[in-house]
Amino acid sequence: MTRIDGRAPDELRNLVIRPNYLAHPLASVLIECGGTKVICAVSVEAKVPPWMKAQKVPGGWVTCEYGMLPASTHERMRREASSGKQGGRTMEIQRLIGRSLRAVVDLNELGENTASVDCDVIDADGGTRTASITGSAVALALACRSDWGRKHFAGCPLRENVAAVSVGIVGGVPMLDLCYEEDSKAEVDMNVVMTESGKLVEVQGTAEGAPFSRAQLNELIDLAEHGLKKIFRIQNEIVDSVTAPLTAAEATGDLFGEFQL
Amino acid sequence: MTRIDGRAPDELRNLVIRPNYLAHPLASVLIECGGTKVICAVSVEAKVPPWMKAQKVPGGWVTCEYGMLPASTHERMRREASSGKQGGRTMEIQRLIGRSLRAVVDLNELGENTASVDCDVIDADGGTRTASITGSAVALALACRSDWGRKHFAGCPLRENVAAVSVGIVGGVPMLDLCYEEDSKAEVDMNVVMTESGKLVEVQGTAEGAPFSRAQLNELIDLAEHGLKKIFRIQNEIVDSVTAPLTAAEATGDLFGEFQL
Amino acid sequence: MTRIDGRAPDELRNLVIRPNYLAHPLASVLIECGGTKVICAVSVEAKVPPWMKAQKVPGGWVTCEYGMLPASTHERMRREASSGKQGGRTMEIQRLIGRSLRAVVDLNELGENTASVDCDVIDADGGTRTASITGSAVALALACRSDWGRKHFAGCPLRENVAAVSVGIVGGVPMLDLCYEEDSKAEVDMNVVMTESGKLVEVQGTAEGAPFSRAQLNELIDLAEHGLKKIFRIQNEIVDSVTAPLTAAEATGDLFGEFQL
Amino acid sequence: MTRIDGRAPDELRNLVIRPNYLAHPLASVLIECGGTKVICAVSVEAKVPPWMKAQKVPGGWVTCEYGMLPASTHERMRREASSGKQGGRTMEIQRLIGRSLRAVVDLNELGENTASVDCDVIDADGGTRTASITGSAVALALACRSDWGRKHFAGCPLRENVAAVSVGIVGGVPMLDLCYEEDSKAEVDMNVVMTESGKLVEVQGTAEGAPFSRAQLNELIDLAEHGLKKIFRIQNEIVDSVTAPLTAAEATGDLFGEFQL
Amino acid sequence: MTRIDGRAPDELRNLVIRPNYLAHPLASVLIECGGTKVICAVSVEAKVPPWMKAQKVPGGWVTCEYGMLPASTHERMRREASSGKQGGRTMEIQRLIGRSLRAVVDLNELGENTASVDCDVIDADGGTRTASITGSAVALALACRSDWGRKHFAGCPLRENVAAVSVGIVGGVPMLDLCYEEDSKAEVDMNVVMTESGKLVEVQGTAEGAPFSRAQLNELIDLAEHGLKKIFRIQNEIVDSVTAPLTAAEATGDLFGEFQL
Amino acid sequence: MTRIDGRAPDELRNLVIRPNYLAHPLASVLIECGGTKVICAVSVEAKVPPWMKAQKVPGGWVTCEYGMLPASTHERMRREASSGKQGGRTMEIQRLIGRSLRAVVDLNELGENTASVDCDVIDADGGTRTASITGSAVALALACRSDWGRKHFAGCPLRENVAAVSVGIVGGVPMLDLCYEEDSKAEVDMNVVMTESGKLVEVQGTAEGAPFSRAQLNELIDLAEHGLKKIFRIQNEIVDSVTAPLTAAEATGDLFGEFQL
Repeated sequence: MTRIDGRAPDELRNLVIRPNYLAHPLASVLIECGGTKVICAVSVEAKVPPWMKAQKVPGGWVTCEYGMLPASTHERMRREASSGKQGGRTMEIQRLIGRSLRAVVDLNELGENTASVDCDVIDADGGTRTASITGSAVALALACRSDWGRKHFAGCPLRENVAAVSVGIVGGVPMLDLCYEEDSKAEVDMNVVMTESGKLVEVQGTAEGAPFSRAQLNELIDLAEHGLKKIFRIQNEIVDSVTAPLTAAEATGDLFGEFQL
Repeated sequence: MTRIDGRAPDELRNLVIRPNYLAHPLASVLIECGGTKVICAVSVEAKVPPWMKAQKVPGGWVTCEYGMLPASTHERMRREASSGKQGGRTMEIQRLIGRSLRAVVDLNELGENTASVDCDVIDADGGTRTASITGSAVALALACRSDWGRKHFAGCPLRENVAAVSVGIVGGVPMLDLCYEEDSKAEVDMNVVMTESGKLVEVQGTAEGAPFSRAQLNELIDLAEHGLKKIFRIQNEIVDSVTAPLTAAEATGDLFGEFQL
Repeated sequence: MTRIDGRAPDELRNLVIRPNYLAHPLASVLIECGGTKVICAVSVEAKVPPWMKAQKVPGGWVTCEYGMLPASTHERMRREASSGKQGGRTMEIQRLIGRSLRAVVDLNELGENTASVDCDVIDADGGTRTASITGSAVALALACRSDWGRKHFAGCPLRENVAAVSVGIVGGVPMLDLCYEEDSKAEVDMNVVMTESGKLVEVQGTAEGAPFSRAQLNELIDLAEHGLKKIFRIQNEIVDSVTAPLTAAEATGDLFGEFQL
Repeated sequence: MTRIDGRAPDELRNLVIRPNYLAHPLASVLIECGGTKVICAVSVEAKVPPWMKAQKVPGGWVTCEYGMLPASTHERMRREASSGKQGGRTMEIQRLIGRSLRAVVDLNELGENTASVDCDVIDADGGTRTASITGSAVALALACRSDWGRKHFAGCPLRENVAAVSVGIVGGVPMLDLCYEEDSKAEVDMNVVMTESGKLVEVQGTAEGAPFSRAQLNELIDLAEHGLKKIFRIQNEIVDSVTAPLTAAEATGDLFGEFQL
Repeated sequence: MTRIDGRAPDELRNLVIRPNYLAHPLASVLIECGGTKVICAVSVEAKVPPWMKAQKVPGGWVTCEYGMLPASTHERMRREASSGKQGGRTMEIQRLIGRSLRAVVDLNELGENTASVDCDVIDADGGTRTASITGSAVALALACRSDWGRKHFAGCPLRENVAAVSVGIVGGVPMLDLCYEEDSKAEVDMNVVMTESGKLVEVQGTAEGAPFSRAQLNELIDLAEHGLKKIFRIQNEIVDSVTAPLTAAEATGDLFGEFQL
Repeated sequence: MTRIDGRAPDELRNLVIRPNYLAHPLASVLIECGGTKVICAVSVEAKVPPWMKAQKVPGGWVTCEYGMLPASTHERMRREASSGKQGGRTMEIQRLIGRSLRAVVDLNELGENTASVDCDVIDADGGTRTASITGSAVALALACRSDWGRKHFAGCPLRENVAAVSVGIVGGVPMLDLCYEEDSKAEVDMNVVMTESGKLVEVQGTAEGAPFSRAQLNELIDLAEHGLKKIFRIQNEIVDSVTAPLTAAEATGDLFGEFQL
């Protein structure tokens, strides 16, 4: 049994991560998972949200915003800035990414800073939210290793890597890392967010067509774990290869190295 | 080990469902899960969303909106109508309720109608989204059994009951049906939506504090299944007790019987 | 001459007020006037509006927000939170309720606090704004008598009771306390807000169909006064029956006694 | 006893109405009541609101929008277009003006047209809503007498004139036609909308400071009637002096005659 | 070759400026350029925008808002306050006016004040943005000469006059000061903002139909300079004729003198 | 005299255009002008704006939306989608791009289609609006040459190329193609949009600091013409090198060739 794009059911799409893709933010990556491309950028501001101030919660915060270029989808999508609000799907996704990152960050180590993570989808071919999580974790690690991060954060706020992948049941077959065409006809769609140490951060499984059994749930999570192990390897390679302190080329975003599965 | 409110870890809160609580919509219930009270109402309009028209998708649609009275929470919550938009949490919840209901509805049987489900929280003490799903499923069943439903729907569009419950790990202990105080200090928080036949519709597990293991995931779903079996029983009692065709009292909302765990 | 629902022209609908209906706010009631049901809740925050601060106006403030559940009306009403703004009717009503309450409150006695009154309509059958005023006055009295109120307010800020009722001319006949069906075909519609001592707070008379004479205006206000005297009686009964200091049952909202015409 | 500006308690401010003040709309006036100046314009579109279409209500509609120039008030007011919404006061006022006009218009005679009345306050010195009603009624009469109106309306849709004036109790004294300074310290504030035949269209009395008695209510309406009789006289003079069919000068707005108390 | 309204190609429309047209703001004018009428008002608040505070920029600020009465245009325009946002054209124009004024204002001389300029179009017949600039400059000069201005501004913040005029190519002929009908069929449309000393502040030329040559650009700017010289003359006459200190009549806006080309 | 980045005053920044950068829209480019990177995408829908329908204007339309990634700027910019509206600068820019493209498009040749051009800034270092125009013109040319374009457009709707460049006076020296640092301290800032045949489409010159003379205006336009000639050359190279009909690689966006100054 082969898939639309020739992959085996338990095979990831090609994964490429380009560190420091943007010129201005503290850290950034362009992550490509097959036809899906997302820019993940980390900016830091020396302030915390009003509710933390009000409640005197110590430490910092990590927040996320997600968007899609109007031309990133098969049919042009309406620009949220011109329609005057972010849709429910956008809000759901950016809340998920924020929670996933906070689960592996020691907010106390951030100091009184807020890390704003922007995930902007350039090309969409399924799995944009999982690619955003995987890419943002790398950008966050690069931010911690930057000169600014080393100076302002007390130790490395990122306790361990976090990554995400989608799994689903398509035509009765459990599959790893769905592309758009598979996703749009999947009976079950699940996103699994996991730490490098193998613990679960988020599990979101949805019966699009027919409800699913406990056995299928387990099979899908097994498949996700299998894929995530490979993803953690490439995350680590990138983070390790970016020297610390960064070279001038790395700091100015001229590097553009690619790390690939 | 007992809980804040004296329950055993695998014990549900008191569950009361009052059918046809409102005067005007096709069907409605007031559902109370411990201190949480939600009004779930089903209104039907003879039209379908524009995208269904545009894509010529046959059948009808089920959609949901969720809201909280400003005074339903511990601290008064800002009214979304006056702040000018629904927050991300609201959108996330109403999308979840809508998906959960559509998973057990045969949209073709609805005809070219849209069932709008309104879930409005009167008092909030944790588990408002799961109470909304459980209550809405009953309201939807009552709508199908109403005179209008029998006349306009081709057969009963609701294939089987659906219900939801929250589970979580609090102080290291897996617990069923968290109240607000438990929820606010839970390490892991999970919502499980299931059909009466024991299949999963949605599983959403979130590590609020520390990531969780596969074993913990399984333990939590076991606990949810245990509670959901009791919930299905009370759902069925209500739906069965509302006679069809409805008596005058039932049709005008004078009934106000209560069905209780 | 009898009315749609069998009442005499000068007869009120059945009036029921359930004190401390909600679990969390400082005070609340569920008020039922015939088929109209409104939850009125009072929450207090230790701050005043920016304009009072800017102009150094001493004392506190009373403000009101009004809303209708989408399923409270004959045809489902669009949810204001999702349409992105409160309509003109909503704004007009919540401004009226706020003004009516402030007319009987000594704002200086409030201290630097803002009492936010939320009136949420559960079922609508005409007279929702007058029911909101009558119910809110009771909730405000209960708030003043609560432990928190006794401790934070200097004396009782509520100088006297205030209540409201609708009157109108239907088919040429002046009538008291219109239900929805009467209201929708009234030639003249009037809301009268009065203090217990018989003074007018607001008079809003509108010719829906044909303009009205001075004689008719006077007849309508006579009718309103007649009804309001009965309403003040039931308001007082409730407030007096809630013991001060409140019993544990009253404070936790378990009381649920009903006071009825 | 004389007032701030030297008037007797039952004396109107100087009233000037300039017909056809604007170049483009079907009809318009600039109305000046003392220091208050409002432009009232009537534009007609050959369509009716969606709800009339949906409910197959025959005839046309009259609607109103009200606004204030930011520099029309003592302190510059925030521009509603830039704050993104119309405030509650604006909505309340434009709804009042629309209702007042519809009370004297035979909507059937309008045909399937909507008359949009725009009332824009140039200078505000109290009584802007009553000036808007008085001025709009003249503009509507001019619209009916215009060539376009004579051709498209079946007969004259305006059954009789309507006008409005404010009255209030200031320092214990009932006064007619309050200016801003009087209005801001009035104990009672009332707007009376009346037809030329002496019938009431709207009565809105508000206790700003202290509740008022039935006797005071009557005294205020007497005072309003006294002033309104003079206002009807000047309304009629203008409408009668604009010849029908209009001269070229009148039609192009070059006339600029003034009609004055 | 004569134009629609009989003017020569290099002829301005009749220009009238009425100083201190409004009662409340620090200074104002009504400017009429042919059929175009705009009220320009200057209000001053003792504060600066947040970004100036944050960046510790010394001095004050000049900002502008622009609006059109709905009935000012040939077809009634939708009211921006009710549509919930200012359109792109409005924003573009108010940004242009603000920049033009700031180019001739010494922001340091303003002190920590913000001058808010409101330009509201009463009648529109082409050239509303250029009339707004010309009128606002006069209003700003009057504000500087007012008692308040003399007391609070360090010297006169307005370094020299600024004015604007439109030019365009219509039917192949370069023309000065286009009216609406000319503007709507112009091949090229250009707005030129200039200082009294003959320097350019803004040049905005747009090919509506066909692109234009360098020679045509120069011809259009020549034409604009020709017209602007006349406009500066009338600006100066007004400013000079308003005596300083102002007479009581000038200060209360009773003056209503007209200055005319 | 050399510039910040070592260029001569009349020297362009490095210019790179990557055709068919995105997977889904009809055509797209990534354009890089020094540190500024913009994705320009063309999507076509078979419909025209409502006003064209209403006025029965024949042919099609070209519209543009512009946005910046929040992390594209030196300080993170607030996301317009989450702030709920597009700012004035954004609206001004997207209106400019749209007008510039329409000036060289034969709207009749488009048929009843709307070409939506999306310009999204990835990295901002000055000149984002001019890069957007230059890039969009190439994307539009590629769209016309695509299979879809050849089939649906009657002939090539693009009459000739259009491009834009910024010029300005910095430290008294006229300079071509300003980078951010130069732009932020420029005395005069000008954007020139020109057709390949040397005609002007838009000229927008703004005195940021001090007004400028006619001589300076001419010098700046000379400088812009000098730069634009080079830009047209590279635009043509790209368009000519993309074979027609497109190869499979070109059509799927795998090409990624770069065209460079």
